[in-house]
Amino acid sequence: MELNNASAEQLAQWEHALAAEYHAIVAKGLNLDLTRGKPSAEQLTLSNGMDGILKGNYTSPDGVDCRNYGGLDGIMEARAIGAAILGVPVESVLAGGNSSLTLMHQAMTIAHLFGLDGSDSAWANEETVKFICPVPGYDRHYSVCEHLGIEMITVPMTSNGPQMDEVERLIAEDSSIKGMWCVPKYSNPTGVVYSDDTVARIAALGKIAAPNFRVFWDNAYGVHDLSDNPAQLASIMDACIAAGTEDSVLQFASTSKITFAGAGVAFMAASSSNLSGFKQSLGFMTIGPDKVNQLRHVHFFAEDNALKTHMQKHAAIIKPRFSSVLTHLESAFGDNDLGDWESADGGYFISFDTQPGLAKEVVKMAGDAGVKLTPAGATFPYGNDPKDSNIRIAPTVPTVAQVDEAMEVFVVCVKLASVRQAIAG
Amino acid sequence: MELNNASAEQLAQWEHALAAEYHAIVAKGLNLDLTRGKPSAEQLTLSNGMDGILKGNYTSPDGVDCRNYGGLDGIMEARAIGAAILGVPVESVLAGGNSSLTLMHQAMTIAHLFGLDGSDSAWANEETVKFICPVPGYDRHYSVCEHLGIEMITVPMTSNGPQMDEVERLIAEDSSIKGMWCVPKYSNPTGVVYSDDTVARIAALGKIAAPNFRVFWDNAYGVHDLSDNPAQLASIMDACIAAGTEDSVLQFASTSKITFAGAGVAFMAASSSNLSGFKQSLGFMTIGPDKVNQLRHVHFFAEDNALKTHMQKHAAIIKPRFSSVLTHLESAFGDNDLGDWESADGGYFISFDTQPGLAKEVVKMAGDAGVKLTPAGATFPYGNDPKDSNIRIAPTVPTVAQVDEAMEVFVVCVKLASVRQAIAG
Repeated sequence: MELNNASAEQLAQWEHALAAEYHAIVAKGLNLDLTRGKPSAEQLTLSNGMDGILKGNYTSPDGVDCRNYGGLDGIMEARAIGAAILGVPVESVLAGGNSSLTLMHQAMTIAHLFGLDGSDSAWANEETVKFICPVPGYDRHYSVCEHLGIEMITVPMTSNGPQMDEVERLIAEDSSIKGMWCVPKYSNPTGVVYSDDTVARIAALGKIAAPNFRVFWDNAYGVHDLSDNPAQLASIMDACIAAGTEDSVLQFASTSKITFAGAGVAFMAASSSNLSGFKQSLGFMTIGPDKVNQLRHVHFFAEDNALKTHMQKHAAIIKPRFSSVLTHLESAFGDNDLGDWESADGGYFISFDTQPGLAKEVVKMAGDAGVKLTPAGATFPYGNDPKDSNIRIAPTVPTVAQVDEAMEVFVVCVKLASVRQAIAG
Repeated sequence: MELNNASAEQLAQWEHALAAEYHAIVAKGLNLDLTRGKPSAEQLTLSNGMDGILKGNYTSPDGVDCRNYGGLDGIMEARAIGAAILGVPVESVLAGGNSSLTLMHQAMTIAHLFGLDGSDSAWANEETVKFICPVPGYDRHYSVCEHLGIEMITVPMTSNGPQMDEVERLIAEDSSIKGMWCVPKYSNPTGVVYSDDTVARIAALGKIAAPNFRVFWDNAYGVHDLSDNPAQLASIMDACIAAGTEDSVLQFASTSKITFAGAGVAFMAASSSNLSGFKQSLGFMTIGPDKVNQLRHVHFFAEDNALKTHMQKHAAIIKPRFSSVLTHLESAFGDNDLGDWESADGGYFISFDTQPGLAKEVVKMAGDAGVKLTPAGATFPYGNDPKDSNIRIAPTVPTVAQVDEAMEVFVVCVKLASVRQAIAG
């Protein structure tokens, strides 16, 4: 299908055929869901051994009675899991509760209102506070900024990460920019792994940015590889040390998509100065995280290579779903310009761009045909995709057969919407 | 020992004898700790059955896969536990993570910065925000106010709860007062149970207070009775309904001192309007609580009367420790005015008042003799006990023999400090 050179007659024929196909699908009354980036029941079951794993012994290897109060940092051995995921020393890691979103919200609230380096360092002391948001990106990052009244400036994603020329230009120009969101590996939703050069340039931002600048480095998919020979993300902490900007980056991760999505352990890694500033406020918010659940994770990943082996099991479940999506996209759009996508080797998403102006229409059409897609625009701050073209496909929850069926519908919707747009001229 | 009528000679004799006793204690090199209101290992072991209780079934009775994301309210059956503890309908309860302090901090942050009833209702819209704090009280309540820059006004505790004439006078006079902290049953540290009249008058505060006034009702010890015939706390929610002030109270509780101090489930109960305002902001902070741990609690307390039976086991462990403290106090100070205390029938503390001006000195002397006490002043906002007389005794963690030994030291310290004060005139 090459719409640009097609005759009006050809377009009308295509429209007719596709509309018939679409209506046949609608008639089936499907009920499929490609919206949520969450693990399937099959994936969750991989960690069912978690409950009961303590066998009555609630004491950490380090000698902490995990049942009682205390310990803002979490237990040492749980912090070591975070250190392994993030590739940083254990001293740099705080192990928290069940949600890295909570840690990120807390970190941003503290940086904004209370200051990570004393109250003078609070962003809110200044009139306007802005954050750089690579787009498309993760809606819950945007909503944290929105909740705190932090303005968002978008920068396009490339296949190497955020467009760094633009990031550097903005930061050099505008001292109200206090930070930047990043999902550096298998970026949500584009699946991009930041290149070594991008990592180095992000680490160097602290040298040109205004004081108290912080990169929020949400390494949510750091060990979520689908390929046997996965891309390697350079160490942002090493790059910061090399650049002398250790305080400019806060790293986050969790086991939400490793063990249990709602009952995992979240981690934050940062310089000792940042950790100390964070904990100073955190101590007002909690007496400490759930160390019993941390200890379960410690036992669950006690064996050498346990984490790697576990993630390979996840990959075996997820891979056919990703393959299905990619096969459908390749077959439908590989030879035309109706859609663009990145072929992600990990993470939870495949990001698809329609021709400009069609994302909302495609999502609506798919929804009417019983295939729920993430609302168009959700991958942009304020829900506003200026090109109205990005759609996030999340294939982990449905079965492979359901992904197949949903993608058939998706492809028809994209084609039909595109043809109709071409006809409308 | 009646210091007031004692001759100088008699005082000197007492001083000499007590000083000798004190130095003999110091020489022992004790290492005892009456500081922390936390459960002992023996108490925690009562809940060891929690781990493994799911037997591989992570689905809630209501059909929720607790392993996955979602559900800001917590699972229905966990909310029912909170409803039972707080004596409210399950619909009024949100079941959260492992910390009621976190829920309270979140609720206060939301009320202050974002508003529980839209942004116009945020306390921070006004120049000055004040909170009433009954004293002595709980230091972590004060620190939440301090963290958010909320000024604290103290009101004395009586044996029926806060001095309500004073509370009502302050609230009627000062529209910057936006709320009040309460620990209504076995108050921390005085052990007082608020009388029915006090509860009714607190519920009625919403009628005389400025808009957006909220009582923070931290019912931390609602089921933590030590007597077989415990005092009954009137229902604040019923009283609010009667007064038409349902939105004026936020209730909190947790299983921290029921199951595991660091790995329990926290609850908030409130009107539907308050819950909805709370969740609107909460949704930016988390995707949901740890439902797996909630489900463990549901199974652990599944039998009729399980909670009551469980709390009786706690009481059997705590009671001898409380008795030891009370016996020592009664025997040393029952016939004189060197100290005042309340005989609590539940909770975690016994509150002791020295003669004015001696609390710091007693805590220091005890510390030098190897008995750690909560810092004097900790039970007052900003750590400032204007009379310097209140000391919080927390006897749950040490063994009964250790409590005995520590109280012997305590008594000597109080007597010696009092005699020396009398000599100094």
